[in-house]
Amino acid sequence: MPELRKSPIFEGWVIISTERGKRPNDFRREKKPARGGFCPFCNGNEDKTPPEVLAYRDPMSAPNREGWKVRVVPNKFPALQIEGDLDKRGDGIYDMMRGVGAHEVVIESPDHSKNIQYLPQEHVESIFWALRERSLDLKKDSRFRYILIFKNWGEEAGASLEHSHIQIIATPIIPKRAVEEINGSKFHYDLKERCIFCDILMHEIKEQKRVIYQNENFIAITPFASRFPFESWILPLKHISAFEKTPTEWFPSLADILKNTLTRIDIALDEPPFNFIIHTSPCNQPDMPYYHWHIEIMPKLTRVAGFEWGSGFYINPTPPEEAAEVLRNIDLTKCGNGAEEVRNVEGQ
Amino acid sequence: MPELRKSPIFEGWVIISTERGKRPNDFRREKKPARGGFCPFCNGNEDKTPPEVLAYRDPMSAPNREGWKVRVVPNKFPALQIEGDLDKRGDGIYDMMRGVGAHEVVIESPDHSKNIQYLPQEHVESIFWALRERSLDLKKDSRFRYILIFKNWGEEAGASLEHSHIQIIATPIIPKRAVEEINGSKFHYDLKERCIFCDILMHEIKEQKRVIYQNENFIAITPFASRFPFESWILPLKHISAFEKTPTEWFPSLADILKNTLTRIDIALDEPPFNFIIHTSPCNQPDMPYYHWHIEIMPKLTRVAGFEWGSGFYINPTPPEEAAEVLRNIDLTKCGNGAEEVRNVEGQ
Repeated sequence: MPELRKSPIFEGWVIISTERGKRPNDFRREKKPARGGFCPFCNGNEDKTPPEVLAYRDPMSAPNREGWKVRVVPNKFPALQIEGDLDKRGDGIYDMMRGVGAHEVVIESPDHSKNIQYLPQEHVESIFWALRERSLDLKKDSRFRYILIFKNWGEEAGASLEHSHIQIIATPIIPKRAVEEINGSKFHYDLKERCIFCDILMHEIKEQKRVIYQNENFIAITPFASRFPFESWILPLKHISAFEKTPTEWFPSLADILKNTLTRIDIALDEPPFNFIIHTSPCNQPDMPYYHWHIEIMPKLTRVAGFEWGSGFYINPTPPEEAAEVLRNIDLTKCGNGAEEVRNVEGQ
Repeated sequence: MPELRKSPIFEGWVIISTERGKRPNDFRREKKPARGGFCPFCNGNEDKTPPEVLAYRDPMSAPNREGWKVRVVPNKFPALQIEGDLDKRGDGIYDMMRGVGAHEVVIESPDHSKNIQYLPQEHVESIFWALRERSLDLKKDSRFRYILIFKNWGEEAGASLEHSHIQIIATPIIPKRAVEEINGSKFHYDLKERCIFCDILMHEIKEQKRVIYQNENFIAITPFASRFPFESWILPLKHISAFEKTPTEWFPSLADILKNTLTRIDIALDEPPFNFIIHTSPCNQPDMPYYHWHIEIMPKLTRVAGFEWGSGFYINPTPPEEAAEVLRNIDLTKCGNGAEEVRNVEGQ
């Protein structure tokens, strides 16, 4: 059973996977993960994953067989395990609990080679429907305090499988960064009775210096204090604290802006590895007037030196105003590189 | 002039290097940094760096010529610039200041191929003398609030030059992680009137489960809530809040424990890329009864997935008790791999 351990010095929890228990030799083998070959997420290999917890599929098809469009399965090697109680305890000055949680994988499509931004818009909407449905379901479990939704794409961004997928981790603690954002935005609200994210939107729309793209319900910007080159955020234009409370009528524009932004990044930066994380409010919370859900996209362009995550002090060589200008000026009707995929985007 | 920008949402500053201003094409070129070839840190190339600010050298030798043992020079491509005032200002909801600071490089030895752990103990002591001397000098500048000392070794750990070196960045803000550690340890002190780090030491010495090595004045442990496999901390056994206030009589044992710990990591993990950071108290502070300086060593074994730095939620596949056992049991008198270097260590 994995264990959750709290830093005795500050707010911050770590999952220690006691079962994986990697010894030194495992790291040597890990250096080059195998690519190509067999893929458990592909069409026809449904029996190579744990049984699906959700699938949007042809009504004539059977569960865990071909005929699906989006499929959600438990992670075969979960960071947290679903059974049991938290069993919170101490050991002298230390605090820990059992690593109880859920770890699921959203397989975005049966097509091995299509990344999310190159799926048709209506397909991407279905992916958001699946994320919403799983969030609502996992939030019913009173042991969970946060639903972390994220995507690693490309080996350098930590993806261990090529086939495009999104991960969902339901945790019994609130991740450190979410705690910081919530406390920080609450502080702003207590001072001004306004949501800091709504203030940022107003400022950015007025200034237009860091706007990448905007549609009916969402905006994509490069944040003022971007930690990474070409870091991009997608936010709903109206205040909503939790992702799963987004009106589903907005899903077409949500799918549009995610495809649009990721495609611009791909063309500008030659399909870089990237991560995105949905930042949303914790479980068991009423609507929060001070917190505003959003997606943070981080292309992996520079090696993040250890001193950066060790000190929390980031050096970003590209001003976000320049990054936004580059991304804004990408002409999605004229294909530079990645031509085939872009035609696919434009042709829908 | 680089700019320091504060996150509007929470405590956290980013250096935006406006002058470097990397455009998309720069990242494509960056993919494979050149290795081998000319090295500005090598003996005889002293005129290829900015003039030295400190050097321990043969008394017969001239500055910025051969004959040195440890040499400190300003970084040729500094993240922060030394001239001028901070000029703190706001832009609507945003806060920023000019990127004023110092960025220096400590060239550990004239020998291109020797990493710090394979230098003679007395040489490593000189490196700590140089770090102390530069810290004391930089702390005199009232614009600076923190002296960040760190080492990136190996390309994957962010080193842009092979020749082994340490970096010093003097910043006009206190890095986020230092703020968190100080606030967290102050909270513990306010509750118990004890230093949390001293409590950790007592606990670890008693339990012996996470101890790697101990000598007269220092101990090396794997921390209870290790974020990374084989993460290792070196702490002084007696309470001292600032690195530069360490009694210099302790430098032999400090050099010993750094060499010893890094050599164990090298043997156990086949010379992995790594980072270390000296965590110390901020500038212009009296002795802090609640903060305890230490070195955090992070071997770079797994790719840190974006979701980990994006969420602050780490998954560590190696329990620190197992890591400590592996490192503790390395027999430094019998060489496994890295034989030549280890003989060098043992033979001094």
